Amino acid sequence: MQYDGLDFPDLRSINQDQSFKVPLSANNPLFALVISYTNTSLIPGITAAGQNKALIKYTPPADAEFLNYGHCECLDAIPVTPDGMPTPAIITKTALDLSNIPFLVLNAGSVISPQAPYVSFDMNPGNDIRTGNAVDESCVKKGLRYGEAFGRELAKLSKTIIIGESIPGGTTTALGVLVALGIDAWSKVSSSLTKNPHTLKNMVVKEGMAKAGILLGSFENDPVKAIAAVGDPMIPVVAGLACGISSSGSNVMLAGGTQMTAIVAVISALKRSLGNICIGTTCYVANDPHSDIQGIADGISSDFPIYAVDLHLEDSERPGLKAFANGFVKDGAGAGGVSILAILKRRGSLTGISILRSIEEEYDKLIQK
Amino acid sequence: MQYDGLDFPDLRSINQDQSFKVPLSANNPLFALVISYTNTSLIPGITAAGQNKALIKYTPPADAEFLNYGHCECLDAIPVTPDGMPTPAIITKTALDLSNIPFLVLNAGSVISPQAPYVSFDMNPGNDIRTGNAVDESCVKKGLRYGEAFGRELAKLSKTIIIGESIPGGTTTALGVLVALGIDAWSKVSSSLTKNPHTLKNMVVKEGMAKAGILLGSFENDPVKAIAAVGDPMIPVVAGLACGISSSGSNVMLAGGTQMTAIVAVISALKRSLGNICIGTTCYVANDPHSDIQGIADGISSDFPIYAVDLHLEDSERPGLKAFANGFVKDGAGAGGVSILAILKRRGSLTGISILRSIEEEYDKLIQK
Repeated sequence: MQYDGLDFPDLRSINQDQSFKVPLSANNPLFALVISYTNTSLIPGITAAGQNKALIKYTPPADAEFLNYGHCECLDAIPVTPDGMPTPAIITKTALDLSNIPFLVLNAGSVISPQAPYVSFDMNPGNDIRTGNAVDESCVKKGLRYGEAFGRELAKLSKTIIIGESIPGGTTTALGVLVALGIDAWSKVSSSLTKNPHTLKNMVVKEGMAKAGILLGSFENDPVKAIAAVGDPMIPVVAGLACGISSSGSNVMLAGGTQMTAIVAVISALKRSLGNICIGTTCYVANDPHSDIQGIADGISSDFPIYAVDLHLEDSERPGLKAFANGFVKDGAGAGGVSILAILKRRGSLTGISILRSIEEEYDKLIQK
Repeated sequence: MQYDGLDFPDLRSINQDQSFKVPLSANNPLFALVISYTNTSLIPGITAAGQNKALIKYTPPADAEFLNYGHCECLDAIPVTPDGMPTPAIITKTALDLSNIPFLVLNAGSVISPQAPYVSFDMNPGNDIRTGNAVDESCVKKGLRYGEAFGRELAKLSKTIIIGESIPGGTTTALGVLVALGIDAWSKVSSSLTKNPHTLKNMVVKEGMAKAGILLGSFENDPVKAIAAVGDPMIPVVAGLACGISSSGSNVMLAGGTQMTAIVAVISALKRSLGNICIGTTCYVANDPHSDIQGIADGISSDFPIYAVDLHLEDSERPGLKAFANGFVKDGAGAGGVSILAILKRRGSLTGISILRSIEEEYDKLIQK
C-alpha cells in the first residue's frame, strides 16, 4: 500500500483503493487497550480465551500486565487458549516496543483489575446476553459519556489513536448489537477458535433478543438500548472514545476484527460522523473464510475503510505463532492495528517480517520461562 | 522572564537568573492531577479544604470532576473552604481551557472516586501520621513502581508534564517526609489557611516520628520508609511519575507549593536525577512570609529551579479570588504550574491578567448557579 509517498507491501486496504483514505498521522500514535468482561464468555464453546473456564476472566488483565511488564502478574504464565496458543498481546507488545508507541490501559468492566496503572471508567462486568439484560442502561450511558470526555483529552495528545480490546466472548456480544441495530451479521462475525461456532453464537443472540423482546433492527435508532439488551461494557466505552477523539479532529483506528464493526454500527446509529474512523486488523481476520468483516461493514456504511497487515505468521517455525495463520485467535488486544501504525511510524524500516522476527524472540523468551 | 526569545512579565524564577534552566517545551504540555487522601486532614485546624470535616474527603474528587465538567458531581457546589473560598481548581481549569492543554486525573488513594474517568494506581488512603504508620510500605513501593511505569508512557506523549496534587492535609505529611529525610523544614511549609498552624503541624509530625521511633534524618537514605512512617500516598506516586518521565528525557513541572519539595527530597534520596525537574507555583506561595519554599529547596539541592506566576488576584473585585492574594489557599490542584505552561504555550498572547479575567468569568458563572 502507498502512504505518504512510501510503499508498504505488508499493508493493504481490504475494501478500497490502495491509498489510505483516512489521513492517519503516523508521527505520534497512541494505543489504548480497553479491557472488559461479559459473562457470555462462560457459555461453553464460545471463546478460545483462557486455558480453562476459571481463567477466562484473567485474560483481559493479564493482557494489560503483559503490555506493561512483558509478563503477567495475575497469572503464572501468559494467557493461552485451551490449546496453548499465546495471547495476541505478544504481537501488540512487540509492535509497541519496536515503534516506541505509548499505550494506556482502560478498564471498562474487567472482573479482575490489572496489577498496573489503568484508567477506570467505573463500569461493571457485563451479564450473559441470554438474559436480554446485558449491561445496565445507566452504565451504557456512562461509558459513552466518560469515553467521549476522555477521548477529547486524548485527541489533544495525539493525531491518531489506536483503540484495541480484550474481552472474551466479544464477537458474540458484537453480533448481538449488530443485529439489534438492524445489520444482518448472522454467521458473519469472527472467532478466536479455528472452527467458528456460528450456530451457537446465533442461538445465544436469538435467546437474548427473545428475552429482551426484540427483533432484527428493533433498536436501529437506539444504540443505548441495543447495547443494554445484548451488548457488553466495552462497546459504549470504545464508541464514546471514538466519538470524542474524531469530533476533536484526531483519527481513530479501531484495532480489532469483527467486534469493531459493532462500534462502527453504534457510532452510525448515534448519528455521529464516521469521517475520521477506520478499522485496522490482521490479514488472518481479513482473509478468514469463516467470517465476513467486509460484508458486515458494507451493511453499515459504504466504503468504510478497513486496513489489514500481513505478519507472515505462516512462515514461523514456532507452532504457537504459526497457529495464528491457521485460524487460531487471528487478532486481539489491538495486535493488527498496532502493527499497522508501527510499520507506518517507522516509515518502511519495519515490515511484517521484521515484526515477526521480534515476536519470535519474545515468544522464545516466554517459552524458556 | 525571558524564554525562547520572548518576555513573560508575569513569570519569574524565584531562585535563579531570569531564564529557564529547565528546557521546558511549551509546545505540547500535559497536565496530570494526582488526587489522594490522608486521615491527617481530619486533625482540627490543619487544613482549609472542605466546608466542614465531613466534606474534606470530597475535595479531591470534586476537583477532578470540576476539571472535567466545570461543575462537581459528588458535591452540590464546588469545593470551598470553611470561609467559602473556591478551590484553586477554578484557576487550573481556566488555564487549561485557555491553552488547550490536555489533562489526566490520577487517583492515588482518594477515599471517594471521582465521577469521571481516572487513572487508578490501586493505592489506599493514608493513615493519620500521628500513628507513625502513614502508608503501608508495600503501597509506597507500588506507588513508586506504577508511577515510574506510567511516567515512561506519558514521556512518549509529551515533552513537558505538569503534575499537580489535591490532598487535604498534604503540607503536614510533606513536612513529615522532609524531616524524616533530614531536611530542616520545621515551620517552613505552606498552608491553605491564612494563619499557618506551624505549631500544630510541627507537633503532629513530632508525634508521628516518636511513634515510628525516628529522628530528623533517620531515613535520609530510605525514602520508602520515610513515606511509610509519616508521608501520604500522593508522594510515592508523584515521585515515581517524575522519575519515569525525567529518565525518559521529558521535563517535569511539579505544580504546587511546599508539598512538592517533599517530592524533590524523595527523588534526591532515591539517588535519581533532578536534572529535568522543576517546581512551578503561584507568587502567593513564593512570596508567602509564613512559609519558605526556597529555604526548603536549598536544603535539598543547590539551585533547584522554582518558577512562580503572578495572577494579579489582588486586583480582582471578587472577594473569593482576591482572598487567594491575601493568604487563603495560595495554590493547589496544579493552579500555578498550569498557569505558567499556559502562558508559555500561548507565547505571550496570554498573561496573568488575561487569565484572571477568564477566571472571573468562570467564578461569576459559578456564583450565579
